[in-house]
Amino acid sequence: MSYRTHHCGALRMEHVGTTVTLSGWVAKARLLGSMAFVDLRDRYGITQLSFNEEENPEMLKLAADLGREYVIQATGIVTERSSKNNQIPTGDIEIKVTGLTILNASDTPPFTIENESDGGDELRMQYRYLDIRRNPVRENLMLRHNLAQEIRRYLSENEFIEVETPVLIKSTPEGARDFVVPSRLNPGQWYALPQSPQTFKQLLMVAGMDRYFQIVKCFRDEDLRADRQPEFTQIDCELSFVEREDILHLFEGMTRHLFQVTKQITLDVFPRMTFADAMKYYGNDKPDIRFDMRFVELKSADVDVVSGKGFPVFDNAEAVIGIKVNGAAGYTRKQLDALTDFVKRPQIGASGMIYFRHEADGVIKSSVDKFYDAEALQVWSEAFQTGEGDLVLILAGDLNKVRKQLSELRLHVGELQGLRDRTVFAPLWVVDFPLLEWDEENARFHAMHHPFTSPLPEDRDKMKTDPASVNANAYDLVINGVEIGGGSIRIHDRELQQEMFELLGFSAEEAEAQFGFLMNAFKYGAPPHGGIALGFDRLCSMFGGSDSIRDFIAFPKNNNGRDVMIDAPSTLTAEQLQILEAGKS
Amino acid sequence: MSYRTHHCGALRMEHVGTTVTLSGWVAKARLLGSMAFVDLRDRYGITQLSFNEEENPEMLKLAADLGREYVIQATGIVTERSSKNNQIPTGDIEIKVTGLTILNASDTPPFTIENESDGGDELRMQYRYLDIRRNPVRENLMLRHNLAQEIRRYLSENEFIEVETPVLIKSTPEGARDFVVPSRLNPGQWYALPQSPQTFKQLLMVAGMDRYFQIVKCFRDEDLRADRQPEFTQIDCELSFVEREDILHLFEGMTRHLFQVTKQITLDVFPRMTFADAMKYYGNDKPDIRFDMRFVELKSADVDVVSGKGFPVFDNAEAVIGIKVNGAAGYTRKQLDALTDFVKRPQIGASGMIYFRHEADGVIKSSVDKFYDAEALQVWSEAFQTGEGDLVLILAGDLNKVRKQLSELRLHVGELQGLRDRTVFAPLWVVDFPLLEWDEENARFHAMHHPFTSPLPEDRDKMKTDPASVNANAYDLVINGVEIGGGSIRIHDRELQQEMFELLGFSAEEAEAQFGFLMNAFKYGAPPHGGIALGFDRLCSMFGGSDSIRDFIAFPKNNNGRDVMIDAPSTLTAEQLQILEAGKS
Repeated sequence: MSYRTHHCGALRMEHVGTTVTLSGWVAKARLLGSMAFVDLRDRYGITQLSFNEEENPEMLKLAADLGREYVIQATGIVTERSSKNNQIPTGDIEIKVTGLTILNASDTPPFTIENESDGGDELRMQYRYLDIRRNPVRENLMLRHNLAQEIRRYLSENEFIEVETPVLIKSTPEGARDFVVPSRLNPGQWYALPQSPQTFKQLLMVAGMDRYFQIVKCFRDEDLRADRQPEFTQIDCELSFVEREDILHLFEGMTRHLFQVTKQITLDVFPRMTFADAMKYYGNDKPDIRFDMRFVELKSADVDVVSGKGFPVFDNAEAVIGIKVNGAAGYTRKQLDALTDFVKRPQIGASGMIYFRHEADGVIKSSVDKFYDAEALQVWSEAFQTGEGDLVLILAGDLNKVRKQLSELRLHVGELQGLRDRTVFAPLWVVDFPLLEWDEENARFHAMHHPFTSPLPEDRDKMKTDPASVNANAYDLVINGVEIGGGSIRIHDRELQQEMFELLGFSAEEAEAQFGFLMNAFKYGAPPHGGIALGFDRLCSMFGGSDSIRDFIAFPKNNNGRDVMIDAPSTLTAEQLQILEAGKS
Repeated sequence: MSYRTHHCGALRMEHVGTTVTLSGWVAKARLLGSMAFVDLRDRYGITQLSFNEEENPEMLKLAADLGREYVIQATGIVTERSSKNNQIPTGDIEIKVTGLTILNASDTPPFTIENESDGGDELRMQYRYLDIRRNPVRENLMLRHNLAQEIRRYLSENEFIEVETPVLIKSTPEGARDFVVPSRLNPGQWYALPQSPQTFKQLLMVAGMDRYFQIVKCFRDEDLRADRQPEFTQIDCELSFVEREDILHLFEGMTRHLFQVTKQITLDVFPRMTFADAMKYYGNDKPDIRFDMRFVELKSADVDVVSGKGFPVFDNAEAVIGIKVNGAAGYTRKQLDALTDFVKRPQIGASGMIYFRHEADGVIKSSVDKFYDAEALQVWSEAFQTGEGDLVLILAGDLNKVRKQLSELRLHVGELQGLRDRTVFAPLWVVDFPLLEWDEENARFHAMHHPFTSPLPEDRDKMKTDPASVNANAYDLVINGVEIGGGSIRIHDRELQQEMFELLGFSAEEAEAQFGFLMNAFKYGAPPHGGIALGFDRLCSMFGGSDSIRDFIAFPKNNNGRDVMIDAPSTLTAEQLQILEAGKS
């Protein structure tokens, strides 16, 4: 006999009168003297089992022994309920139980298996197999599955081939730290786990695969921050014979498709913004454009309407920049002080905040009235195009610092004003990033994306003359202020790649040792190509309306890189260590 | 302007007269004085470009400079060919080129990019990105993609959820050797790479996921044999509330679906065979049943029709077993000697081979006529049900050895007789494996599958009294003599699992240290569950009609576990080693 005829989410009025068998977990058991009710749960739903002393005294006795999370099999007749429950799809019926088997007993679980559990984070991670029984966690994992399936379908329909690239590869000391794996068969040598399949996907383009994708685990041995995982999943794509426009079109299409099928949301054409504008107007290369609140410069390289009035903070500042908060002129002193405290926190690091309000009678009142008269404030008001009831918050200092600080303040105020609605999605392409970043400490250039990113065709000539001003043919996909992915048109020309390695301070030997195979491949007809990689964990959490990627990973690691459920990493046996030691000689 | 308007496999008669742009590789260039023809290749096909001095002398000059594997972009008018090529789908047309751009030049490749290349294995692996440009390799990778897509579709439609399990897990010294990864954040501790997600998928069943699958990389640090890879891909599945029958039904359905959609082959219901019968009739737990040639025992525990005639080889043998080769009575002396040599090779290890033939006139002639008269041989003939023209090959010795040797001989003769057709597929379920294997050397039991496999329900009681005789609730899927996958109904009961660990010689502490989290999970309502894992590399090679899994892996490793293309594994930098050393204190 099989364990069940139906799932716990399947039965409806149309089944009334039929005999069924269900299996699942006891979510709830209520004993009411001569009657008992059990909520039986599986992945598909909940069905009520009913027991009645008059009808079946033996079954009622069995039901009395059931504890929470017992695994049982129940046979009975589908019956219309007297008091229906319209909260669940099976709420019209119940099963009058005629046969009951306990398949497995359960100890009392360490926390409640409910949508809102009483278990703390650490406890739930330790018993993750119980945590996953909870609807929200299970639904996250199912959302992840559905997204992966839809992504694969979309890309396959667009001629992409999923190719598995190797996990045991070669260490490349550039960039983040690699996880490494000793090779027993090659003593003294190590594999590395891939931080991304970057070089392999480029080789697949040289190989003529034309369109490649992979949903693939990547690894980075970094000091973990909240919401960073040592292993993470990437949607990795590469295409041949394409320009930037082709790639943006395809992946905008994919993102739109995913929103349509999984959330029934139709997105507009994604706006685009240059890196320079993103920094100027949002102080950030991944602006949250669910709300406007753009930066307005009162003092910068281009403008100055604040200096020379005897206010040293502005006089000495490289930049004075503000944001307008619509309708917030009514903020109390306490609220404004809290904002000042916010920007003065060490993580933000501003020395203070200036503000002015456009009051109901048209009067502009500022926190620096001592220095700026009504006429001066009128100029500010015009710069911000304030109307009655608006509040403007202003920070001053070094340009880059002010941008960063004001960006944090903008997001904070956006949150306070309810402008960052998790059910609203505002995608954005950020383009034209600088190719190189100057590293003051080591007095050298770093690649802003990676060393395989090509310059914009029109900037190619400046590579030798003014490398710092060269823009990359790169793009990031940002949704709601979160970087979902990024990519670029790659270098496919051996000489340009060599030039790039030189700019990054690689010696010819280093370039050869680390990327010789790619440089070699470029000799044999490398096609123009480009690609993109999207963070799949991040994408899932975005679709799930959560800030935490951990909620969308079945078995995540904690901030020390530990899996507290299986207790890994752990020590090795003496025998294992001996084999590893032998490899070193 | 974009790089192409069409792929190289797209154009047909209906496009004649239109102007198109193609991009791709120069597969072939033929210069014929005042004309030139170039075969332009991409992933989708080949299109002929034509150049004519009269029409466009400038273009012809450009074409003369093209070398093999140059990457070019060509614009021109689709024209009907004067001499058509019906070998390729685009063979009716050619492009009269009006614009040509060299996108990238190419050195002469180290081997020919043809279906049959002149490159040796090692060279092709070193330049794998060129090898993949060859049709057969690319088609293998595309077959792999299509199979993966179809598997995901089938399983998703059957309510399976793909869940990613972690790659950085805990070392379990049982079984094969783990690859290990030092943890910098947890000095002195190591992760291991999974040999399979076995415990995680069982935890997902405890977690109520009901049906799980994953196409997932697994890792085994073994001494590599031909066609073993240190990293390999598994189709990993687990289901709750199922019995063996449910699982066989579902995965037989999946296999049949895959054959139908990718090869248009409709398979019959898969036969089933017990392990005992597989050993008795094929000497092998993965019989190739594309052909019959079953073992017939002339002497065994059950029968003896050979002893006592003065032939010491048979008198002293534990077993005398043979196979009938239909219509092979005409094998020459030389052919028979070659078969004797085959079984006497050290890898097979038989001491000799006896044979008899059923000749055209009904006479039975044997290689041991000295000992066995016509009457005795008549008994043999009846045992094998020989007819005129049949040949019987017989081996003698210890039962297990004879079975193994005769199994090899059977496969060899099957090959010689053309009975192992790569376009014929004979699937088979092998069931009822022994639960335990006795390890003579260490005087202990090993789990034949793994320690989580449950005994057959009817054998449960013998676990304590006669463990060696207990059969497992396990099953293997075999196609054409190749083990494609296997699985079992698992133990879901804590006590039985403990009993199993004890039988396998685990101390309570060892069991707790290695599998404590699973044993703990079993306390909280583990459902009955079971699963299966299929070797995806093997499945692909089966579908592709090849014996080598390497042909179906984009970037395989050689027998020393090396990737000769990227030259991995490799040494680490002093800095990397220092960090690892620091972790040990």
